[in-house]
Amino acid sequence: MGDLFPDIKKIQYEGPLSKNPLAFREYDADEIVAGKPMKEHFRFAMSWWHTICASGSDMFGSGTAIRPWDREPHPVKRAKLAADGAFEFMQKLGIEYFCFHDRDIAPEAPTLAETNERLDEVCGYVGDLMKKTGIKLLWGTANLFSHPRYMHGAATSCNADVFAYAAAQVKKAMTLTRDMGGVNYVFWGGREGYETLLNTNMSLELDNLARFLKMATEYAKEIGFTGQLLIEPKPKEPTKHQYDYDVPAVLAFLRKYGLENDFKINLEANHATLAGHTFHHELHIARINGVLGSIDANQGDLFLGWDTDNFPTDVNAATLAMLEVLKNGGIAPGGFNFDAHVRRPSFQDDDLFIAYIVGMDTFAKGLKVAAKLLEEGEIEEFVSKRYASYSAGIGKKIVDGQVGFSDLEAYALRNDQPRNVSGRQEMLEAIVNRYMLNP
Amino acid sequence: MGDLFPDIKKIQYEGPLSKNPLAFREYDADEIVAGKPMKEHFRFAMSWWHTICASGSDMFGSGTAIRPWDREPHPVKRAKLAADGAFEFMQKLGIEYFCFHDRDIAPEAPTLAETNERLDEVCGYVGDLMKKTGIKLLWGTANLFSHPRYMHGAATSCNADVFAYAAAQVKKAMTLTRDMGGVNYVFWGGREGYETLLNTNMSLELDNLARFLKMATEYAKEIGFTGQLLIEPKPKEPTKHQYDYDVPAVLAFLRKYGLENDFKINLEANHATLAGHTFHHELHIARINGVLGSIDANQGDLFLGWDTDNFPTDVNAATLAMLEVLKNGGIAPGGFNFDAHVRRPSFQDDDLFIAYIVGMDTFAKGLKVAAKLLEEGEIEEFVSKRYASYSAGIGKKIVDGQVGFSDLEAYALRNDQPRNVSGRQEMLEAIVNRYMLNP
Amino acid sequence: MGDLFPDIKKIQYEGPLSKNPLAFREYDADEIVAGKPMKEHFRFAMSWWHTICASGSDMFGSGTAIRPWDREPHPVKRAKLAADGAFEFMQKLGIEYFCFHDRDIAPEAPTLAETNERLDEVCGYVGDLMKKTGIKLLWGTANLFSHPRYMHGAATSCNADVFAYAAAQVKKAMTLTRDMGGVNYVFWGGREGYETLLNTNMSLELDNLARFLKMATEYAKEIGFTGQLLIEPKPKEPTKHQYDYDVPAVLAFLRKYGLENDFKINLEANHATLAGHTFHHELHIARINGVLGSIDANQGDLFLGWDTDNFPTDVNAATLAMLEVLKNGGIAPGGFNFDAHVRRPSFQDDDLFIAYIVGMDTFAKGLKVAAKLLEEGEIEEFVSKRYASYSAGIGKKIVDGQVGFSDLEAYALRNDQPRNVSGRQEMLEAIVNRYMLNP
Amino acid sequence: MGDLFPDIKKIQYEGPLSKNPLAFREYDADEIVAGKPMKEHFRFAMSWWHTICASGSDMFGSGTAIRPWDREPHPVKRAKLAADGAFEFMQKLGIEYFCFHDRDIAPEAPTLAETNERLDEVCGYVGDLMKKTGIKLLWGTANLFSHPRYMHGAATSCNADVFAYAAAQVKKAMTLTRDMGGVNYVFWGGREGYETLLNTNMSLELDNLARFLKMATEYAKEIGFTGQLLIEPKPKEPTKHQYDYDVPAVLAFLRKYGLENDFKINLEANHATLAGHTFHHELHIARINGVLGSIDANQGDLFLGWDTDNFPTDVNAATLAMLEVLKNGGIAPGGFNFDAHVRRPSFQDDDLFIAYIVGMDTFAKGLKVAAKLLEEGEIEEFVSKRYASYSAGIGKKIVDGQVGFSDLEAYALRNDQPRNVSGRQEMLEAIVNRYMLNP
Repeated sequence: MGDLFPDIKKIQYEGPLSKNPLAFREYDADEIVAGKPMKEHFRFAMSWWHTICASGSDMFGSGTAIRPWDREPHPVKRAKLAADGAFEFMQKLGIEYFCFHDRDIAPEAPTLAETNERLDEVCGYVGDLMKKTGIKLLWGTANLFSHPRYMHGAATSCNADVFAYAAAQVKKAMTLTRDMGGVNYVFWGGREGYETLLNTNMSLELDNLARFLKMATEYAKEIGFTGQLLIEPKPKEPTKHQYDYDVPAVLAFLRKYGLENDFKINLEANHATLAGHTFHHELHIARINGVLGSIDANQGDLFLGWDTDNFPTDVNAATLAMLEVLKNGGIAPGGFNFDAHVRRPSFQDDDLFIAYIVGMDTFAKGLKVAAKLLEEGEIEEFVSKRYASYSAGIGKKIVDGQVGFSDLEAYALRNDQPRNVSGRQEMLEAIVNRYMLNP
Repeated sequence: MGDLFPDIKKIQYEGPLSKNPLAFREYDADEIVAGKPMKEHFRFAMSWWHTICASGSDMFGSGTAIRPWDREPHPVKRAKLAADGAFEFMQKLGIEYFCFHDRDIAPEAPTLAETNERLDEVCGYVGDLMKKTGIKLLWGTANLFSHPRYMHGAATSCNADVFAYAAAQVKKAMTLTRDMGGVNYVFWGGREGYETLLNTNMSLELDNLARFLKMATEYAKEIGFTGQLLIEPKPKEPTKHQYDYDVPAVLAFLRKYGLENDFKINLEANHATLAGHTFHHELHIARINGVLGSIDANQGDLFLGWDTDNFPTDVNAATLAMLEVLKNGGIAPGGFNFDAHVRRPSFQDDDLFIAYIVGMDTFAKGLKVAAKLLEEGEIEEFVSKRYASYSAGIGKKIVDGQVGFSDLEAYALRNDQPRNVSGRQEMLEAIVNRYMLNP
Repeated sequence: MGDLFPDIKKIQYEGPLSKNPLAFREYDADEIVAGKPMKEHFRFAMSWWHTICASGSDMFGSGTAIRPWDREPHPVKRAKLAADGAFEFMQKLGIEYFCFHDRDIAPEAPTLAETNERLDEVCGYVGDLMKKTGIKLLWGTANLFSHPRYMHGAATSCNADVFAYAAAQVKKAMTLTRDMGGVNYVFWGGREGYETLLNTNMSLELDNLARFLKMATEYAKEIGFTGQLLIEPKPKEPTKHQYDYDVPAVLAFLRKYGLENDFKINLEANHATLAGHTFHHELHIARINGVLGSIDANQGDLFLGWDTDNFPTDVNAATLAMLEVLKNGGIAPGGFNFDAHVRRPSFQDDDLFIAYIVGMDTFAKGLKVAAKLLEEGEIEEFVSKRYASYSAGIGKKIVDGQVGFSDLEAYALRNDQPRNVSGRQEMLEAIVNRYMLNP
Repeated sequence: MGDLFPDIKKIQYEGPLSKNPLAFREYDADEIVAGKPMKEHFRFAMSWWHTICASGSDMFGSGTAIRPWDREPHPVKRAKLAADGAFEFMQKLGIEYFCFHDRDIAPEAPTLAETNERLDEVCGYVGDLMKKTGIKLLWGTANLFSHPRYMHGAATSCNADVFAYAAAQVKKAMTLTRDMGGVNYVFWGGREGYETLLNTNMSLELDNLARFLKMATEYAKEIGFTGQLLIEPKPKEPTKHQYDYDVPAVLAFLRKYGLENDFKINLEANHATLAGHTFHHELHIARINGVLGSIDANQGDLFLGWDTDNFPTDVNAATLAMLEVLKNGGIAPGGFNFDAHVRRPSFQDDDLFIAYIVGMDTFAKGLKVAAKLLEEGEIEEFVSKRYASYSAGIGKKIVDGQVGFSDLEAYALRNDQPRNVSGRQEMLEAIVNRYMLNP
């Protein structure tokens, strides 16, 4: 391990009562839960941008954090030093995956050709660190939103030259992802949307987005990239409206353009809540549609209207999320990427470690509670009984497609007053609490 | 015309400066705009529930309005008297269509059979009024949400007996709609959703919803009902989450179950805004997906989190809506149904007339502004130029599917710094204002 | 105890692992926490309206629940039978207080005089039950929002006759509250606000509201009612804007009219969240301003924009609330009134018990966690150190008023680069979790 | 005039039908409306930060605009060149005021002393331009939120050294404001609030904020600065919760600390809407409390949860705002400062001019409509009649303090059924539209 964080030792599991902020209380990587080690359930990943690049700047203030590599003036040297820091950070936390945008790992140079050279150099360096440490690439992606060229979008830009530039960027990023053994590739369309409908040809933009994604699938085949392609929904911010608004919007799009077998979804908690949904809801929708691919683990503040990307601390929400992941048969080849950043006033280096620990502990606890809930089956059994009427009699005929409106009317006239039983919401919420509060 | 509103005469168009609250200022039914009479653009409809049945009650208080027919104690006589009032109301406003739920027009009786008899009797009476007045049925629907039997949903109830009852109700409502010459039939799933995911088998519920809608299409064929079937999205309220959340959610659902050719969408302004979208946005999405079927005209209060169903007064919003309708080639066989109710303190009978006048004037003005915007073409031309790069060169190759990532990379390496031009949002918004403020 | 809920026995504490939904898992009334029995910390109260009167109706559907007393047709007999049910309910749950509106306990009669007679009769009956059971009145209030006469407000109505009627109603309700030994009296201004500023003289309305409240303080003195007067903030619903929007709005109002010593605040969790604040925040503001009087315990759904009045299940939120209550030196003479109702599909009688149990357990757990947090002092100590700079040096001079801008500028010029330390938000959130998850 | 915008001529009024995007359609500076020239009603001001400094960067992307002065590398020379641009811009638009933060006009240097020197030099230069052009300073302020030192707040920082630094900064900014003839001084507490209550001593922070503001009033007296002191409310962003949340929060604070005679309010439209209020509402509250001091003119997007600072285009909202300003007897010595920035894709220099024109036209139209509404008095008369019951009889006695609850009960018992009349919301909204749509 490196020595850019000399005051931090490898983070250990010390059990739920430890007061050491630099220890795990719930996450014990090799503990077996629901048949496999915790770490396999999660496949936790470090987000390069929020962890290594972020400085704490916001719309009203400049960065507060200065990381050990930030004082190196030469861009490529700084990128390599930052990579050293990233791997030291992951090793100390026992995190086995990372995710990156092309522009996180190596900053843009004056020309595309030079930028690509930089990328090659730094990714080569990172590749060596990967070999040395065994740390793997969960997913790569291209940043198609920060540079002014993308002001009107990338694949949905009104400017065909920008579409071409974006294609070049994804081509490079996907190639590097393949070369680095990445098991997924993510598309987040931060500027694929509109600022005002008044200047927008949405129909053409969506067709172009489909064309772009189609090209991506073809290119993946061409280069033998077999990782999962993932779309990450977000409703807005920076753009007023983003086309990949939420899971249903993505599904409607994929199904329209015949892309539903080529893409799954990378779901972020804070993006779900910005779209007006609970994280649980979006995970559920993705799961039952067979497209739950990977998770961007974070937490929004429901009283704030922007993407706060807090580290997750809500154990109840984590429990409900893990219920979906367990029912999904796990998240692999996806993982849990911490698309989260420390609060601006939490600017010290140890805050980075503390924040990751909090997030990993929160999900670890959620996993344990969810696993026990499924094992004991109180809720599952309740739900199963609740829908029992569809397993026999008229309900079974409905499910089996043996009846139509006329049959059902005849039945209803005979069976005039259907009787319901309570939905028991309060009781069920109390059951979740019981499992959460009692180890 | 009847005499239940003896103080109100037939509402006349008096021109934009009239101070008479009981006159149209913008809506002149037979004035030709964009090639056809205003009334054909709109096909305005009266909503039976909000106009004839609503009393002004809310969650914290009882009704404030007592309509002329409310004092009649006998339910069927009251229903007929209310129908007299409804037709007098429509005639005086020059409204040529209406919409109803089964339970609006005739109240539920102790048994389904008796309820159906009541419906037959009152609908017969209404049919006579239709013949006498020439007023037509825009759409019918079944109320599958008010009775306690639907507490867990109708087509998505956990109780198969309730599914059957709902089917019986839709069968009857659709038959009546056909008999009364209705040109559309609406499905609004007010309780098709969930209160808590903890007790919900969403996968089965969605399958059942699809089964129900499939049966509806089959039944329509069976009885020769050729009207358009419409789904009305709403994100929530009364239910925590409704499956027909917004247009993309409906599209994703229809496409999954192969129903996309059988249903269009009845779009309500306030439902769009509750889902986090402008009305303009949802109309646009529906239009470019070929499913814009009909409109529930109203207006929400963006500072309130429930369905306020205000009468529309926002001329800017109406203009943007009418742009979509005109580009859609009109709304027929759908129409503009005022799914709006007077404010609780606007409880007098003349408020009903005033509110409809405000709503009709708002859309009439919006139509005139939108027609002029399209005729002059300033905005259309701007947009067309903005995307010109896709009509030639690399852009055309993208659109024609002649290039892939490798070609585009080669192009981008040659053409390193794409140049953008301004999106001109401020200028375009000013243009809309110019047309709106200057007749 | 009565026998209106014959299947429910007295609810017992069975410990955290009990699977019995009709047992307390966390609330053990006589367990000593932070120096006094749990029940004295909370002074839990039953809300008459949501528990005894509510049927589960919502804006889109009629009631789902039929309580044992609902079949009695005579209004006064029904009211007495309902009172029997109420006291049986409270006794079985071990709840020692209740709260009511005048119109909950006895329905309105054709005239005010008759209504008052009914009230006297039913309150006499309730008084006997109070003596028999030892159950006490936490607070009374007048319903000044349900009847159509209050469509434009009560104390803020544009109609002076309505102001007078409201005064008469409060006079009666306050007198009864005194007679029944009530220890608080609540003002919730559900219609004290506006629907549109266009028809509103807000300045006169606020002056009138102050006049009304002043009269109330005078009348309280006149009749020797020494209970605490409480204002309950709510931002909206049913009214578009309510004057008692949140705690700061109430403070600004009270201070303007010199009423700040006469009123404290009855704070409701769901009202806080509708106003855009956490419950914790509003409690904190009330506490540090010395006006935290009583609590309406419930929980909103942050994804829904109306007052859902769920029973509280969020232990983290309850912990933060209890921190404020403990720092406030307790809530007496106020209490925790469950202004919460079962979900519409939780319509069975036992759901009422289960929901109260969930709510009481949630706060009981919150109390225990909060008490331990304060006892151990990890967070308090952190905060204390964080502000240490104001206990000495330049900070002390600032606090003591010994310096002005010129002194501070001189200091700043000498001490050019202030050094900050991390705010440690993530660490502090993890500490709360640690206490919550580990008994 | 300068030549930094060589392609833009002085903007002329060309009347409502002009299609020239670089002409006024509604704003005619010297046109007399309601007794005085338009320009005196508004006292329009340019915001230095959003107009001269802003580059279009957002949380997900870097700046898109490069202004004529941005290529000058030397910071002080660049600041002076930018000032040339600012005055050319204002002259070409006919804007007679500007507003600035200390750090907008001259960038921070390594030490406070050097920063102050820079400020003196650039402000001297700006002072010369003011003399030459007759353009005046509407208000100055200090940026106490962008530098990392303010990460925990300024006057409410946990760090007393930071409090001192902030004091030094305000001292300098206020002195410069006085020297430059500024007629107001603004306090916007962008970081005066909290990120988490867990680490916050709010009580001390609020006391310190009051101490800071008290020192400011004393310093103003000391240096003979007689401009109006203004507080600008904002509920959140960048901070999770800001203490100056909305007008009532500021009033509650000022009244608590005896500062209500020393401060008025600078009200921003987008801050109002972020707090859950219409701009109209906050203006109204400020006006009837005598604290409406100045206006930050912009417009939010109600579908986005952050401060978008759009240029105003909503004529209806502008009309309602101008009603309040006219009833306030004007806004002087405050003004209308465009705290608005062009959309990120509107990056060209002419977009800046177009955006200001749109904003000025929007308010000009609003003024004309509001003036006519007041002149004709339809709405005022309606409101006056609506409250007539307080001018005689029991209502007058209420207002005059001649009655208490007992008198009112006696009255109510005699006058049992108060009669209401409609609130006429729909009619009133239609009246506003009538005036807006018809010149």
